[in-house]
Amino acid sequence: MAHRTIRKYKDTIVEEELIQKILKAGCRASTTGNMQLYSIIITCEEAGKKALAPCHFNQPMVINAPLVLTFCADFNRFNKWCIRSKAEPGYDNFLSFVTAAIDALLVAQNVTIAAESEGLGVCYLGTTTYLTAKIIDILKLPRGVVPITTLTIGWPDEQPEQVDRLQLDAVIHRETYHDYTDEQIVNAYREKENRTDSRQFVAENRKGSLAQVFTDVRYKKDDNVAFSNMLLAVLKDQGFMNQ
Amino acid sequence: MAHRTIRKYKDTIVEEELIQKILKAGCRASTTGNMQLYSIIITCEEAGKKALAPCHFNQPMVINAPLVLTFCADFNRFNKWCIRSKAEPGYDNFLSFVTAAIDALLVAQNVTIAAESEGLGVCYLGTTTYLTAKIIDILKLPRGVVPITTLTIGWPDEQPEQVDRLQLDAVIHRETYHDYTDEQIVNAYREKENRTDSRQFVAENRKGSLAQVFTDVRYKKDDNVAFSNMLLAVLKDQGFMNQ
Repeated sequence: MAHRTIRKYKDTIVEEELIQKILKAGCRASTTGNMQLYSIIITCEEAGKKALAPCHFNQPMVINAPLVLTFCADFNRFNKWCIRSKAEPGYDNFLSFVTAAIDALLVAQNVTIAAESEGLGVCYLGTTTYLTAKIIDILKLPRGVVPITTLTIGWPDEQPEQVDRLQLDAVIHRETYHDYTDEQIVNAYREKENRTDSRQFVAENRKGSLAQVFTDVRYKKDDNVAFSNMLLAVLKDQGFMNQ
Repeated sequence: MAHRTIRKYKDTIVEEELIQKILKAGCRASTTGNMQLYSIIITCEEAGKKALAPCHFNQPMVINAPLVLTFCADFNRFNKWCIRSKAEPGYDNFLSFVTAAIDALLVAQNVTIAAESEGLGVCYLGTTTYLTAKIIDILKLPRGVVPITTLTIGWPDEQPEQVDRLQLDAVIHRETYHDYTDEQIVNAYREKENRTDSRQFVAENRKGSLAQVFTDVRYKKDDNVAFSNMLLAVLKDQGFMNQ
């Protein structure tokens, strides 16, 4: 309940023992058929962080966080085990990518909770699925491995306000999905639109509505289309589109 | 650290207040640009559970759990808000599906942790991405909404042994991915292969290795290919493949 994204970190490392502790807890997350279809790439060194930063649009957390974790959907290890065991892996398809991505994401959120329970702060980098090919290149990910999310982790050097959330009723549905009426949409987003920071956001960007800040500035159609095609090409290159 | 999947539940409901509490905690999870691109469908009624059961290969948890939660990637609500706000949503593409699926999965794991901290037990249903079109039909999910995982939740009526995990070193990589040598693969999976339950599994299925139980019995290429094509068709039908 106390979660807030932490983007500013103290200039203190995260001790190796603690890294191990939060990763071990993370890896207790449920995984499909107990196959553990993920790998976690730990970036601690300056050079690695500097190389990754442009993949994340140079957001300063990548350089400033003592610890950067890239969570990858990984069928490479499992496939290698199959081949060594005279078993023929049939995991070079889209479902297998989705399965491995689910495994990796549940671990990421489990690591988040473990880190936060130790007083650490984290920030998710949604940019991981944008310039994915570049991340693959930097982290030397082989066929069968695709990065799906990234966490920057460190000791908090800020205590930001918690961001708003929609009322629970706006995101849950009972028994079946009850599609939203115009009135329900207006009600669901009213509080968010009326926030001072939202209004500032609209004014700064000279837009007519908060939604326009999302569609015209933050998450634009042209970018989404370009990144979609890049991501689908990555899935093909990494061996997940043979169906 | 104490997580184990719970498949048997006591015949006791989960009180509405507690459902709200764990869902509220779940929804504190990080979400892309605070867009909350997910919906959670609550199934409590017998009829709903009976309808969903075949989509999950009639695993008994679906009927026996007092609470079934289907987590969906959802751009429908956000798109409707955009349109009402004279903003043109550009979220009918593959990247947007992945973004919303990430949001939904982080919430699912957060709900899991919240539920487990209250003493509840959960089981993930990986089958959610198999017969997705049928789930969409049963739950009446509109365009822009795709189910990505399911949790069955209830009061534990079993305390199973914790399942094994690979050693942490087998799933982490430092600075770059260090691809596995044959020896590293053998070492990584030796403990798993030598377990009594693994050996039983191999014997029962009359296979030559544990990996063959996965490739030939549990997660077969033909099934994966069929489900991949079905899932890609669902993404197209639900409006996520216009790039």
